[in-house]
Amino acid sequence: MRILFLGDVVGRTGRDAVVKRLPGLREQLRIDMAVVNAENASHGFGLSPEMARAFFAAGADVITLGNHAWDRKEIIPYIAETPRLLRPMNFPPGTPGAGSVVVVLRGGHRVLVMTVMGRLFMDALDCPFRATAVELSKHRIGVNCAAVIIDVHAEATSEKMAFGHSFDGQASLIVGTHTHCPSADHQILPGGTAFQSEVGMCGDYDSVIGMQKEVAAARFWRKMPGERLSPAEGECTLCGTFVEVDDITGLAKRIEPLRVGGRLSQTMPAV
Amino acid sequence: MRILFLGDVVGRTGRDAVVKRLPGLREQLRIDMAVVNAENASHGFGLSPEMARAFFAAGADVITLGNHAWDRKEIIPYIAETPRLLRPMNFPPGTPGAGSVVVVLRGGHRVLVMTVMGRLFMDALDCPFRATAVELSKHRIGVNCAAVIIDVHAEATSEKMAFGHSFDGQASLIVGTHTHCPSADHQILPGGTAFQSEVGMCGDYDSVIGMQKEVAAARFWRKMPGERLSPAEGECTLCGTFVEVDDITGLAKRIEPLRVGGRLSQTMPAV
Amino acid sequence: MRILFLGDVVGRTGRDAVVKRLPGLREQLRIDMAVVNAENASHGFGLSPEMARAFFAAGADVITLGNHAWDRKEIIPYIAETPRLLRPMNFPPGTPGAGSVVVVLRGGHRVLVMTVMGRLFMDALDCPFRATAVELSKHRIGVNCAAVIIDVHAEATSEKMAFGHSFDGQASLIVGTHTHCPSADHQILPGGTAFQSEVGMCGDYDSVIGMQKEVAAARFWRKMPGERLSPAEGECTLCGTFVEVDDITGLAKRIEPLRVGGRLSQTMPAV
Amino acid sequence: MRILFLGDVVGRTGRDAVVKRLPGLREQLRIDMAVVNAENASHGFGLSPEMARAFFAAGADVITLGNHAWDRKEIIPYIAETPRLLRPMNFPPGTPGAGSVVVVLRGGHRVLVMTVMGRLFMDALDCPFRATAVELSKHRIGVNCAAVIIDVHAEATSEKMAFGHSFDGQASLIVGTHTHCPSADHQILPGGTAFQSEVGMCGDYDSVIGMQKEVAAARFWRKMPGERLSPAEGECTLCGTFVEVDDITGLAKRIEPLRVGGRLSQTMPAV
Ligand SMILES: [Fe+2]
Ligand SMILES: [Fe+2]
Ligand SMILES: [Fe+2]
Ligand SMILES: [Fe+2]
Ligand SMILES: [Fe+2]
Ligand SMILES: [Fe+2]
Ligand SMILES: [Fe+2]
Ligand SMILES: [Fe+2]
Repeated sequence: MRILFLGDVVGRTGRDAVVKRLPGLREQLRIDMAVVNAENASHGFGLSPEMARAFFAAGADVITLGNHAWDRKEIIPYIAETPRLLRPMNFPPGTPGAGSVVVVLRGGHRVLVMTVMGRLFMDALDCPFRATAVELSKHRIGVNCAAVIIDVHAEATSEKMAFGHSFDGQASLIVGTHTHCPSADHQILPGGTAFQSEVGMCGDYDSVIGMQKEVAAARFWRKMPGERLSPAEGECTLCGTFVEVDDITGLAKRIEPLRVGGRLSQTMPAV
Repeated sequence: MRILFLGDVVGRTGRDAVVKRLPGLREQLRIDMAVVNAENASHGFGLSPEMARAFFAAGADVITLGNHAWDRKEIIPYIAETPRLLRPMNFPPGTPGAGSVVVVLRGGHRVLVMTVMGRLFMDALDCPFRATAVELSKHRIGVNCAAVIIDVHAEATSEKMAFGHSFDGQASLIVGTHTHCPSADHQILPGGTAFQSEVGMCGDYDSVIGMQKEVAAARFWRKMPGERLSPAEGECTLCGTFVEVDDITGLAKRIEPLRVGGRLSQTMPAV
Repeated sequence: MRILFLGDVVGRTGRDAVVKRLPGLREQLRIDMAVVNAENASHGFGLSPEMARAFFAAGADVITLGNHAWDRKEIIPYIAETPRLLRPMNFPPGTPGAGSVVVVLRGGHRVLVMTVMGRLFMDALDCPFRATAVELSKHRIGVNCAAVIIDVHAEATSEKMAFGHSFDGQASLIVGTHTHCPSADHQILPGGTAFQSEVGMCGDYDSVIGMQKEVAAARFWRKMPGERLSPAEGECTLCGTFVEVDDITGLAKRIEPLRVGGRLSQTMPAV
Repeated sequence: MRILFLGDVVGRTGRDAVVKRLPGLREQLRIDMAVVNAENASHGFGLSPEMARAFFAAGADVITLGNHAWDRKEIIPYIAETPRLLRPMNFPPGTPGAGSVVVVLRGGHRVLVMTVMGRLFMDALDCPFRATAVELSKHRIGVNCAAVIIDVHAEATSEKMAFGHSFDGQASLIVGTHTHCPSADHQILPGGTAFQSEVGMCGDYDSVIGMQKEVAAARFWRKMPGERLSPAEGECTLCGTFVEVDDITGLAKRIEPLRVGGRLSQTMPAV
C-alpha cells in the first residue's frame, strides 16, 4: 500500500495547490490512501466545510485538524456528520467529531487513521500517549487492519520522537504536524514504523509559518496590537510524506519526503 | 567562501563523529569556516573545556552554545578567556563570555559569528531581535566583513522564520539550532541570506533528541522521578548546513544540508 | 464540624512550627479535622516519611502533596501504604498512592479529602475538573459524607476560581495551595462551599516563597547557575484556613483565615 | 504621606465603584496620592480614554496598565499625551507612553510611580528587574523624591517576592497586580519597603477573576470555542492597599489592606 500525507494547508495558495495537484500525485505515485492536515486552510485559521469537500473531491481520504480545529465554527456541525474529518483524539469527552476513523479502501483493506495533539508548549489536554495506546489496543496492524497512520500534532520534537518510539511497531506511519517546517529526519524506526517529526506545511515559504512575514515578524519586535495576520500568497510548496507499506505486516518498507513547487528544494519519491 | 555549520553535538557518539570527520569534511568540501554548536556535548548537558579544545583542534573555527551553556560549570572560566566560544548574546549584561566574535580567516577575510536565544517557549531573556540589530549595526556584510553567520537557538519555528526575514540581506547564513531535528526548509531568502530553521543534531537518531529513548519517552507517560537521562550511543548522524558565499557581497549563493552517518537519509553538498 | 487546613510547609522553620503549634490549635479552635499540605517540608523539596509521621502525630488527619510530591524518593513506598497521605488525583493511572481518602472521625463522621493539581502554567496532566467530578459522583455531601475538603494545587487564580465555582455546593471547602502567598479572598460561594484561592505557606515570609531571598532573587537577574536554593530560616508564619461546617448539610457556615507567628499580620478565627 | 493603591478595575461594576467611592476614601483616609490599575476597566479588556478621564476626575493621581494595555486601541494616542497614564516600563523601546512618572503633589512633594511587567508565565519582555534598577538609579527616595510606588504586574508570586526584596529600601511601596486575588501577605520588608504580592481587583468576586463564571469556567472543561467572556456584574469589592510613608525617609511606616463592598471580608485601614 502507498500512503501520501500532506501537511498543514495554509490559506488560498495552499488550498489551490492541494486541489490542483493531489489528483495527479495520486496517479503518478499510485497512492492508495491520502491524508491531508487542513487546520490552516481558511485564511490560516481553521477549515470551512466547503474547503473540506474540495479536498475530499481532490482525493483526500481523510482530513485531520489540530489546535486550529474550531477556528471556523461552521466546521462543528459538519464534523459531527463527517467521520473522515478528524480532530485530535485527546480533546475532552463530549467534543464534537472523532479523533480516529477506519477507512475501507477499494480493495477492501482497512486503514486506521488517528490524530492526537501534544501537550508540551501546547494546550492542557488529556494524555496523547495513553489515548493512543487505548485506541491501538483495538486494532492490530497486519491482523485486522492493513495500515495505521497517526498524525501527532505537536510543538516539541522531544514529544514527537518519544511518541514515535512509544508506538514503534504498532503503526505504519507516525508523522508530526503543526510547526509548518518540514523535517529531514524521516526514517523507519527499529520496530518498522515510518517516522518523520514534521511533514511541513502546504503553503508559501517566503513567510512566517505561512503568514505574511512583515506583520508576523513585527510581533516579535513589538508589544503592541498590530495588523491582522493573513496568509502569504506566493507560490505554495506542497510538503508531504510518502510511505510504502508492506502488504502483510502493515509496517513501512520506505519513507520519502515530497516537496513540490515554491521556494523549497524539490524532491519526489521514486516511483 | 564556504561555510559549514554543524548542529548540537550530543554525547560521546556526537563528539567522536565530529572530531573524526570534521577534518575530512573541511578538506573535501573546501570549507573556509566551520562553526559547531556543542551545547550538549557532555553527556547531553553542556560542554567541558577539554571537549571544546578537541573541537577546535578538529577544525571548528567557532563553537556556539545555547540554553545548556552552563551545565558544565568548568566552562565558565574557560569561556571568559576563549573568544571563539560563544554563548547566546542576549543573556543578561554581566554574563561571562560573549555572544559574538569576529574571526579573521587565513586569507584575511573577517567573518562575524553570533548566536542569540529565542524566547518563545524558552527562558525569559532580552530581545534577541533587538540584540541582533544592535550587533549588526556595527558590521556591514560585503563592506567590513566578508560573511556573517548567525545561530538562532530557539524552539518555535515561527520565531526562527521571523528572525530570518528580519535580518535577510544582513547575514550570509541564519541557521536554527536547539530542536535537534534537521529541517528541510533550507533556502536563500529574497534578500540573499541563506536560511534553515534547524540544522539538526550530531547524535544518534534512534533516540529522543539524542537521549536514550526508553527513559526519555517514559517522562511523557508518567509523573514520577525516573532514571537519569543519558545520551543514546548508537551511530551518529552528523547534521550540518553548507553555504557558499559570494566573495563580493557576502550573501549566499548556495545552501545545502549535510547528513552523514547513522540512521538519517544521507546527503552531501555537491563539490 | 470544624476544619483546619494548613498550607505548604516549607523547611525546618515550617515543620517545627506545625509540629509545635498544631496540637494547641486543634484544642483551642476545637478542630475535628486537620489537613496539612507538606510538599515542601524537606528543605523546600518534598517530604520524608519521618516528617510525615511527625505531622500525623501532631494532629494532621490527612497530608497532601503537590508538584513536589516525589522530590524525596523515600516517599514512594511510604505513600503506597499510607492512605492518609495524598498526591494529586489527576496524576497518571499507575502512579503510587492515591488522590483521595475517606477519613472516619472519632464521632463516626466520614470526611472525604481529595487533592488535584491545576494545569495552567503547570505540568501536563489529566483534567483536574473531570477527575474531581468523577470522584464527587461517588460521594454526596450531607448524605453519605459529612464534609468534603478539596486541595486544588494550582498556579493560576483563574483556574482556582473556575474550580471553586464548578464544584460549589458539592464540597465544604475548596482551598488553593502552591503559590505560597495567602489570599484574602476567602468567602462562602453562593452554593455553600467555603473557598479561598490560596491558603499560603507555613514558612518564613522574609524570603522568596519560603526560600532564601538572595539566592532565589538572583535567579531572576541572571542566566547562570547559582547556589542551591535552601529554605529561609526566620520565624515561621503558620498560614491556614478555618471552616465551620453545618452538621446536616456539610456546607460551610463560616470561613476564616489564620496567620500565626512570623512577619505577616496575625489573625485567628473567633472561637 | 498617605498612599492608596487600587487594583485592577474590572468592567462596569469596578468602574462605577471606583468613581463613586474614591473621592470619599481619599477624604476619609486623608490620602495624598492615589494610584489605580485600570487595565481591565473596559468590559474586562483595556481602558478607554473616557474611562481614564473619569478615574482622574475621581481622584486617581496616576493610572497603571498591564498586559491588557492595548486592548482598547483608542488608548494609544491618548497615552502618548497623558504622562500620568502608565504602561509597563519594560515594553520594547518605541512603545507609546511611558512606564514611570514623577508626580508633584500639592505640598510640593515629588512622588515617583512606575510599573513593570513580570516575565514568568507571561510575555517575552525585557528584564523588569534591570529596568527598575536603571530607573531607580535616577531617583533617591528621601533625597530627591518623597515616595516611590512600584506596580509589579506579574503572575508568579516568586517573581513578585524576588522583586520586592531586590528593591527593598528603595521604594515606599511595591505592590503586585494582575492575578485579581488580593493577598494577605502585606508587610514592611526589612529595608523599609511596604510590600503586598497582590492588591486584588476592583470587581465582582462571584466570578472567575472578574469575568462571568459559567463561561469562564467552561474554558477549563472544554476545548471548544465558547461564548465571549464578559465581566460579572454583581457588587464590586474595592480592593486596595493603604500605606503610610515616613515624611523624612520615604519608607513605609504602615501597610494595611482595604476591602470595601461586595462579597469579600471587609477591612478598612485605621484612621
Ligand atoms: Fe498548522
Ligand atoms: Fe497547529
Ligand atoms: Fe541542543
Ligand atoms: Fe538547546
Ligand atoms: Fe508548595
Ligand atoms: Fe507546589
Ligand atoms: Fe488585570
Ligand atoms: Fe494583567
